[in-house]
Amino acid sequence: MTKAAHLRRLIEEGRGPVLTAGAHDGLGAVLAERAGYRAIWASGLEISAAHALPDAGLLGISDYLAAARIMNQACGLPVIADCDTGFGNELNAAYTVQQYEAAGIAAICIEDKVFPKVNSFADHRQMLVPIAEFTHKIRVAKATQTDPDFMVIARTESLIAGSGMDEALRRAHAYADAGADAILIHSKAKTHYEVEEFMGYWAGRLPVVIVPTTYYEWTARDAGRAGASIVIHANQGLRATVSAVTSAFTMMLNDGCSSSLEGHIASVKEIFELQRMDQWLELEA
Amino acid sequence: MTKAAHLRRLIEEGRGPVLTAGAHDGLGAVLAERAGYRAIWASGLEISAAHALPDAGLLGISDYLAAARIMNQACGLPVIADCDTGFGNELNAAYTVQQYEAAGIAAICIEDKVFPKVNSFADHRQMLVPIAEFTHKIRVAKATQTDPDFMVIARTESLIAGSGMDEALRRAHAYADAGADAILIHSKAKTHYEVEEFMGYWAGRLPVVIVPTTYYEWTARDAGRAGASIVIHANQGLRATVSAVTSAFTMMLNDGCSSSLEGHIASVKEIFELQRMDQWLELEA
Amino acid sequence: MTKAAHLRRLIEEGRGPVLTAGAHDGLGAVLAERAGYRAIWASGLEISAAHALPDAGLLGISDYLAAARIMNQACGLPVIADCDTGFGNELNAAYTVQQYEAAGIAAICIEDKVFPKVNSFADHRQMLVPIAEFTHKIRVAKATQTDPDFMVIARTESLIAGSGMDEALRRAHAYADAGADAILIHSKAKTHYEVEEFMGYWAGRLPVVIVPTTYYEWTARDAGRAGASIVIHANQGLRATVSAVTSAFTMMLNDGCSSSLEGHIASVKEIFELQRMDQWLELEA
Amino acid sequence: MTKAAHLRRLIEEGRGPVLTAGAHDGLGAVLAERAGYRAIWASGLEISAAHALPDAGLLGISDYLAAARIMNQACGLPVIADCDTGFGNELNAAYTVQQYEAAGIAAICIEDKVFPKVNSFADHRQMLVPIAEFTHKIRVAKATQTDPDFMVIARTESLIAGSGMDEALRRAHAYADAGADAILIHSKAKTHYEVEEFMGYWAGRLPVVIVPTTYYEWTARDAGRAGASIVIHANQGLRATVSAVTSAFTMMLNDGCSSSLEGHIASVKEIFELQRMDQWLELEA
Repeated sequence: MTKAAHLRRLIEEGRGPVLTAGAHDGLGAVLAERAGYRAIWASGLEISAAHALPDAGLLGISDYLAAARIMNQACGLPVIADCDTGFGNELNAAYTVQQYEAAGIAAICIEDKVFPKVNSFADHRQMLVPIAEFTHKIRVAKATQTDPDFMVIARTESLIAGSGMDEALRRAHAYADAGADAILIHSKAKTHYEVEEFMGYWAGRLPVVIVPTTYYEWTARDAGRAGASIVIHANQGLRATVSAVTSAFTMMLNDGCSSSLEGHIASVKEIFELQRMDQWLELEA
Repeated sequence: MTKAAHLRRLIEEGRGPVLTAGAHDGLGAVLAERAGYRAIWASGLEISAAHALPDAGLLGISDYLAAARIMNQACGLPVIADCDTGFGNELNAAYTVQQYEAAGIAAICIEDKVFPKVNSFADHRQMLVPIAEFTHKIRVAKATQTDPDFMVIARTESLIAGSGMDEALRRAHAYADAGADAILIHSKAKTHYEVEEFMGYWAGRLPVVIVPTTYYEWTARDAGRAGASIVIHANQGLRATVSAVTSAFTMMLNDGCSSSLEGHIASVKEIFELQRMDQWLELEA
Repeated sequence: MTKAAHLRRLIEEGRGPVLTAGAHDGLGAVLAERAGYRAIWASGLEISAAHALPDAGLLGISDYLAAARIMNQACGLPVIADCDTGFGNELNAAYTVQQYEAAGIAAICIEDKVFPKVNSFADHRQMLVPIAEFTHKIRVAKATQTDPDFMVIARTESLIAGSGMDEALRRAHAYADAGADAILIHSKAKTHYEVEEFMGYWAGRLPVVIVPTTYYEWTARDAGRAGASIVIHANQGLRATVSAVTSAFTMMLNDGCSSSLEGHIASVKEIFELQRMDQWLELEA
Repeated sequence: MTKAAHLRRLIEEGRGPVLTAGAHDGLGAVLAERAGYRAIWASGLEISAAHALPDAGLLGISDYLAAARIMNQACGLPVIADCDTGFGNELNAAYTVQQYEAAGIAAICIEDKVFPKVNSFADHRQMLVPIAEFTHKIRVAKATQTDPDFMVIARTESLIAGSGMDEALRRAHAYADAGADAILIHSKAKTHYEVEEFMGYWAGRLPVVIVPTTYYEWTARDAGRAGASIVIHANQGLRATVSAVTSAFTMMLNDGCSSSLEGHIASVKEIFELQRMDQWLELEA
């Protein structure tokens, strides 16, 4: 079974929403799998941050794809790739599908903002493209894929852009009509109410994907009952990394050594296990 | 001033050993600089782990170089690149120098093990190449560089391989004779005594680099007094990442949400700051 | 002397226009240098074609940069990189300058079309961005560079887009005001007259770059007298490759062997020379 | 049908040897397919030369893989990837299989020389690894693949290394015992006799692959009758490129323009066709 088919099965089997962890490299993917996540979100924010660049479309498709490929090969989980706007127009979207599908990625997610996008949580312009432009992009993307299980998730930034619930629904339905396999409804509200409201109106026409970053108190169980099929913890791993590495670095600089960290951070042996070193070295003659 | 010149000045100014943080991506480099480290170690162990691969020479030069280049561009600190054995023979070492120097890397470190090496802390064969083979590699590397400030650090694995102190010294002197700019004396002892002993005999002929991973109680100050010019905290950032991300993932899976993490992990706003998003967005018309 | 300084000197010394060859890989750069060209044009058309993709902005900055870097390292000539529109908006242009400058590229060329551009010779929409948008992009690009010798060449597609000579001049002057180091005036006319007319009006305010592809009868000498500082033979190498490889493949398929090619194609020995194999192998102990 | 299955069918259907063209980029793959070749050889010599580097193991797996992936995506033909020695030891060979198989490559070819290898036609040391070392590498490679159709071609350099026919046969049989899917018998003789002799003794135990570079007069038909299943024209396309680009560059430098080339080199329109620009632009709204 391909990973795309696997992701579809996870969505369809209805055992609650597919809990998905944001990651940016192979290690993150391995940690997510080991912890019990069922899918990986190859996060544009995380990948940009790993390059020490803003999430504003500076990197090109090859950089995002390389990161997604590494995550995909590192674990058995299906990868959902955050592909921003599809990296340009509908031709870029077609090329994106070709490349990500060839890499064994299960799904891509493209959003209805103007290229180059800026991160949705940024206090900055958030401009949507006209509906017809984005439905065309979806149609081209869907017409490009060769594996019928490969998924194109259409993400609407209507609520992010302040365009309101009606616009969000109008767009979501148009994207469904155009052939999208799922809708990601994004929100930066401090509560889950607008997302819940959206799902109430949406009534399960297609699977819904949510990213509870600002409305972090909403549990996956409740989100599932409200209609979410995929719940993405998109950037908490990165944020935990920043805190932990900063603490470790500060402590070592203060102490001049790592004594006070030992026992509180993973051992070198655990790193070796995550790298599957023993299995690799068993291949030696 | 180039970064290579900057690294030389840091070593020469004698304000204690140059505290150097292991990293594997741009974010790690930024965090190290923010915390107060003065140089970056582009760690082979960390880069391999980020690819979810063992530190056993599976990745090629282009993968390590790409990671080092990102770290170098992400911060103002000089980068010392862990280049394993130089990725093959003396021709590979020459190519390594060409590529890393062109990327603005301040120094490379090459070690005297057989290609493909296996991580020094692995409970596994650790085979040294003959001295003449490695001195030739050093000579070729030094003859290849065009910027006189670029440094080639020769790392001897004599103590790792169990070859003893005499062999370590014999090799270090031969590497110095061959033109190495500094000696990295590696050790997996639980105490710092053998490293300290080495430095006693060495008597400061060339700067010494140490990597206190197993002998973690030795402070940089004491190491500096004993003769160390560069102290590398090579993998603690990675190990802190593994613990922190695992905790975060486990907690979110248990709780179904990230509520209990908030306030304990970096905010999205802090991520934006690390990405220098505001400075970038200021460029907009 | 950096390659950027070298390119400026070539332009300034006034020994006729700098003859520049289009290329897409290291071999092309080596062949151009061996033949006597004085600079390399890292051609977007050629690089796209080498990927078997249309010249329509499908590849990302990393792909174009990787190709330019290889060309730059392969030869002693300065490389002028065709950077399409700067790969997006002004932030992308800033990132482009950072990356290409760090790679040792002497100059980038950015054009005033809407992202993603389509090749200028395509029988297709050719839409210009507003002048103010492009002058802002130039200002941001120039403010980003750190080496004062690095050049930003502004390419106007006014004649390609059918906007006329007045528009071409208006734009060129605006781009000069914004800080561009040279103007590339592109044309797909079958004769050189419109380019010559442009240069007459321009009167040498800044160096002018031309790409005589459709108006191929105009010699570099005559172009130089008319005011061209750089003449780019942008794609003839690629086109010669297509013909020659097609002939060779067809002949071998017809004959079942390569007998009739031998003596007409380069020998394996010549390939070795171009690879500088002897110099590399001399490094062996 | 996967490309690996397709390649197996081509070998098995017995319509004469599978004529295979050496290439190094997407354009070469497209030209080979258009001319009528039935498979692509992702040539280490060509890929190295395109980087202006000797064929001596300087590039790493990622560079060769990136080139093979581009060729594979550019055309419908199966790609046989020249993987030198497997880029190191048996762990590297396993990683090679993982990566190339994931990229959709139909077959890899690994050779029994010491890493880093030097091109077989070079007047230079050609050292073989012990048989047991290489059979172990083959076993590990075969145990790593997940698609049963993926092929591992074992290449013996016995004749190149001057070890004689008996050694070539001893090795080929050992490699077959170890699970190799085909044997590449390499030769730099000026005639085909030693290759023909090998195939006589071999008696079709496994498919045989040949590379008639020095013994260029032997036709594929005759080679097929003698027992060859795959005939690779490994580097003639590159060599034709060198001659043709050199001629074009020289002529343009002499004439100052490309007039005398026009009509003799491919048109820009033909480049567009090879890039499939019209099909791509049809995707536009």
